[in-house]
Amino acid sequence: MKTVGVIGAGKADEELIRLAEEVGRLLAKNGIIVITGGLRGVMEAACRGAYFEGGITVGILPTLSKEDANPYVKIPIPTGMGEMRNALIVRASDSLVAIGGEYGTLSEIAFALKTGKRVVGLKTWDIKGIIQVNSPEEAVRILLKDS
Amino acid sequence: MKTVGVIGAGKADEELIRLAEEVGRLLAKNGIIVITGGLRGVMEAACRGAYFEGGITVGILPTLSKEDANPYVKIPIPTGMGEMRNALIVRASDSLVAIGGEYGTLSEIAFALKTGKRVVGLKTWDIKGIIQVNSPEEAVRILLKDS
Amino acid sequence: MKTVGVIGAGKADEELIRLAEEVGRLLAKNGIIVITGGLRGVMEAACRGAYFEGGITVGILPTLSKEDANPYVKIPIPTGMGEMRNALIVRASDSLVAIGGEYGTLSEIAFALKTGKRVVGLKTWDIKGIIQVNSPEEAVRILLKDS
Amino acid sequence: MKTVGVIGAGKADEELIRLAEEVGRLLAKNGIIVITGGLRGVMEAACRGAYFEGGITVGILPTLSKEDANPYVKIPIPTGMGEMRNALIVRASDSLVAIGGEYGTLSEIAFALKTGKRVVGLKTWDIKGIIQVNSPEEAVRILLKDS
Repeated sequence: MKTVGVIGAGKADEELIRLAEEVGRLLAKNGIIVITGGLRGVMEAACRGAYFEGGITVGILPTLSKEDANPYVKIPIPTGMGEMRNALIVRASDSLVAIGGEYGTLSEIAFALKTGKRVVGLKTWDIKGIIQVNSPEEAVRILLKDS
Repeated sequence: MKTVGVIGAGKADEELIRLAEEVGRLLAKNGIIVITGGLRGVMEAACRGAYFEGGITVGILPTLSKEDANPYVKIPIPTGMGEMRNALIVRASDSLVAIGGEYGTLSEIAFALKTGKRVVGLKTWDIKGIIQVNSPEEAVRILLKDS
Repeated sequence: MKTVGVIGAGKADEELIRLAEEVGRLLAKNGIIVITGGLRGVMEAACRGAYFEGGITVGILPTLSKEDANPYVKIPIPTGMGEMRNALIVRASDSLVAIGGEYGTLSEIAFALKTGKRVVGLKTWDIKGIIQVNSPEEAVRILLKDS
Repeated sequence: MKTVGVIGAGKADEELIRLAEEVGRLLAKNGIIVITGGLRGVMEAACRGAYFEGGITVGILPTLSKEDANPYVKIPIPTGMGEMRNALIVRASDSLVAIGGEYGTLSEIAFALKTGKRVVGLKTWDIKGIIQVNSPEEAVRILLKDS
């Protein structure tokens, strides 16, 4: 089964939330497992979108406690590794979509590009290698293309 | 949702395989997510038992490749951390059952007991702190008890 | 004792090598432990500069083998974690200097800025938060300032 | 340069402390880098013995803070990985000596034996594969033997 990581900040404005939720919904609709960091903001929105579409959502948490996962994470993976778990999110994902985001998201983008994974961007960092798109539909269409 | 880690060697004899498969089945029947290292032997048997009962199975893999997971892992988490991922298996599990096993299993038992998690044992290491049991039914009954 | 991480690509041109070696030398001269990823390019140059100044050099390696360290690493720490070890380099460093670098370096910059560590840049990524400087002397002067 | 990990509990009685200090001293005297978990008890005693013999001592810490290292750690490596850092201690060590110890030490013994590293034991767990010895001198003599 294909996995896509949805990465972005734990605090996000309404527009990013809306984009993330729609990305999550479309991924689930296409039978893709949604991997996130399990917390709030973009992570929660992507999980929520996938959750109500009946999809599988994984939250790879920085802490040791499953209780820290947002309510739409079906499979919580508490790591106790702090931000180091960002590398695990990338490793668990076949490809990734970055939505907004700050330094944590940047570390995930860098890890993903370093290891040759496809990274699609929606209103995120401007880093060479990211495929910048304008809508959730376009993001998911590119993520679904065979690599 | 409650998670139980099923730990044991990647090479196991027929009896251990039978025990692991029955443990997996009973866990899934009780709505518990089965966490394993995702490889063969005891790990595969536990996943198979849970899989055919309709349960959720997570494989926290030592390698970077999802392809290394046994066919009954629904959620593969490739870590690229080698044996260090044993600590992640423990962290992702509310409690654990050890079935047979060699040094890798011993490291998981030690991590689990160190962090105060319940460890039930079936024909495994004789280490103080493990609750030794005689059957899959007894193992799951103890794992389901409130801590 | 203060530690500074010197980060940059494993393949670097002559100018970056010269800069990294001088940074390493100046850090060692000031009694600072030099932390690197232990491999070639900028990492090796920084270690060499520090080594011949009599300094302590630590190489936090992606592989399991000490043999992969460059010859100027006095303390090799093989991690077997691949690129995930980048987070360990940041955690072991009080502050960092980025010299050139590709995506691996970008992941370290992101981790460092995420956790509030000072990052000085020499001909490296243009990311908000990095203190861009023009010479090894300026880099080390800023790294030595009390935070 | 050869590295030896000295592992054991953070709380240890006088006899274990005396043994660990002597092991640390003998290792340093033989030019060996002493790797520990960087905290108190057996770890601190081994570092102290090596420190006053002029040796190099590395502390691979569970926390994010160098301040948590005992005063005889020359090279602190804060990991922020909690007990998971036990695997890093093993990976950084060519061979290991276990002195006393509880579950944390057991996890290190298991990791070491799993990866084929020599483990010498002084009043520690009784696990097949450990070379049990009766004195620091005997421990170090065996650790120094070519593998």
